[in-house]
Amino acid sequence: MEKNVIERLIERIGYTVAILGLCAAAWSVQAADDPLPSWNDGAAKSAIVDFVDAVSSEDGADYVAPADRIATFDNDGTLWVEQPYYTQLAFALDRIRALAPEHPEWRAQQPFKAVLDNDVEALKASGIKGVMKLVIASHAGMTTAEFETIVEDWIASSEHPKFARPYTELVYQPMLELLAYLRDSGFKTFIVSGGGAEFMRPWTEQVYGIPPEQVVGSTIATEFALQDGVPVLRRRPEMDFLDDGPGKPVAINKFIGRRPIFAAGNSDGDLQMLQWTTGTDGRRLGLIVHHDDAEREFAYDRDSQIGRLDKALDAAESEGWVVVSMKDDWQTVFPEAAR
Amino acid sequence: MEKNVIERLIERIGYTVAILGLCAAAWSVQAADDPLPSWNDGAAKSAIVDFVDAVSSEDGADYVAPADRIATFDNDGTLWVEQPYYTQLAFALDRIRALAPEHPEWRAQQPFKAVLDNDVEALKASGIKGVMKLVIASHAGMTTAEFETIVEDWIASSEHPKFARPYTELVYQPMLELLAYLRDSGFKTFIVSGGGAEFMRPWTEQVYGIPPEQVVGSTIATEFALQDGVPVLRRRPEMDFLDDGPGKPVAINKFIGRRPIFAAGNSDGDLQMLQWTTGTDGRRLGLIVHHDDAEREFAYDRDSQIGRLDKALDAAESEGWVVVSMKDDWQTVFPEAAR
Repeated sequence: MEKNVIERLIERIGYTVAILGLCAAAWSVQAADDPLPSWNDGAAKSAIVDFVDAVSSEDGADYVAPADRIATFDNDGTLWVEQPYYTQLAFALDRIRALAPEHPEWRAQQPFKAVLDNDVEALKASGIKGVMKLVIASHAGMTTAEFETIVEDWIASSEHPKFARPYTELVYQPMLELLAYLRDSGFKTFIVSGGGAEFMRPWTEQVYGIPPEQVVGSTIATEFALQDGVPVLRRRPEMDFLDDGPGKPVAINKFIGRRPIFAAGNSDGDLQMLQWTTGTDGRRLGLIVHHDDAEREFAYDRDSQIGRLDKALDAAESEGWVVVSMKDDWQTVFPEAAR
Repeated sequence: MEKNVIERLIERIGYTVAILGLCAAAWSVQAADDPLPSWNDGAAKSAIVDFVDAVSSEDGADYVAPADRIATFDNDGTLWVEQPYYTQLAFALDRIRALAPEHPEWRAQQPFKAVLDNDVEALKASGIKGVMKLVIASHAGMTTAEFETIVEDWIASSEHPKFARPYTELVYQPMLELLAYLRDSGFKTFIVSGGGAEFMRPWTEQVYGIPPEQVVGSTIATEFALQDGVPVLRRRPEMDFLDDGPGKPVAINKFIGRRPIFAAGNSDGDLQMLQWTTGTDGRRLGLIVHHDDAEREFAYDRDSQIGRLDKALDAAESEGWVVVSMKDDWQTVFPEAAR
């Protein structure tokens, strides 16, 4: 009945293989269970998972009913790339070029001349007033249905200057996972962005899984009219609402009507949304995406013209918001290219 | 083996009872299957059921994907009672009376004096400008959280002058069934009302099953502030948006971002919402609640100051909207009183 050495060795190898197999199985179960596979293990990921567990545990002190699990996300720089310039600005410049043949006067008028001449210095010199002129000229004067088609066509055919990929592929894979993780945990996810609501709505459902009615953004004035008996909404050359800075909590209250328990942003334009979200009783989470990865994306914060992160970075410290390092916390930045 | 007469009689009675039982069961199954039990059989009910069947039948020509099944409902006069005056006006007048001790100057100022003196003629003489003054004085000057509490307290403690029931019980039972039927059929239901969004949101989920983020209404301006370091939204004495008439399609586009395929209203303030909903390709349904039941509710249309239904009643004919007769189409008007 006694086993010889060879048999014992085989037996032991068998055990080892079996144990390794069990370990592998356990590891793969854990990997499959990981809702945030593109996030490196660390404080940021732990803070997110702990928060979601806490508000979802029915017998816990921090439990929040699903209906009140409202999560708001900034878009530019939080869900997709915003450098070297906002995508919507690229859209506006392309539209100005496309419309130029109908506007010969633009050849002599700033800031239009600057766009047509590719004169970056003159464009910068025109300042925020100049940019608003470009936005109005490119975003108004058509019906809402026509504008939707213009956005759809442009977003399907345009590429980012650095990455040479469609803008809708330059969304952050870890944030896509975070959106899905929150929704799987009973949250309702909203966009609350300084960008135009009608510039985002045509593609947010497909790209982020966020339907149009959960997209809050800046708006242009529209007016209802019967055009040859057919009802239309015309986009007028006038701003309606700028959804930025202190405008974000105002918009959250106006459009959503509930106070979020989670908010994510990346710039000073998100400061008040984060304050509004976290500055009350009960478990809350504020999150800031810090662009510190010049190699895989861009590195910028306090001195950037676009997506400046200065006051909100200071506040993160005192308020206990999670600052996500793109470089250290994210294993992947963008999704793999679609084929 | 032959049965005697008594036995046969018993047997026959047994059969009859059994058949009656089957009939009763079949009837109760049919009743249980009826999604609109408070609607009398007729053209209105058939039009609703046919519409829902058509847009829900995956292999039908009129199929609409669930995500696009957007239904919008006016509130005053469509979902709840609006006579002898809008509920929100009753709220405003009660608030003026409650605030009067802090405002001794109101005793000599119109339209406040009229309210405090119960002088209906002087109140009417103050016109829409006077009413707006009352609305601003009663709806502004506090934080959004404070206002929510004020509304909750008032709505829980106030009664309708004619029916002596809480306003939240003076909702239309057939419309509650319609809301539930649409939701059960994959629709997302929204309120789009001239009433204040923040006057409705505290109770719409409980009463209509419509959460705050699906309530679109008129808004007062708010501003974000840090009050002793605590973030608040202050309600300012200034209108932000009047969600009525041509403002309704504008608001639908701004807040919802999708075009409804179903809309229900009851007055000329809903005309453009109904035009916007039905004035395009694809299967659509517009519905108008016609208040023609003086006995169970109120009877009014073309000449009423509140909830005037004139142009929209004419348009219903040419546009093929369903006009619901409260008297003939509704078996019940209000839900049974809660005990």
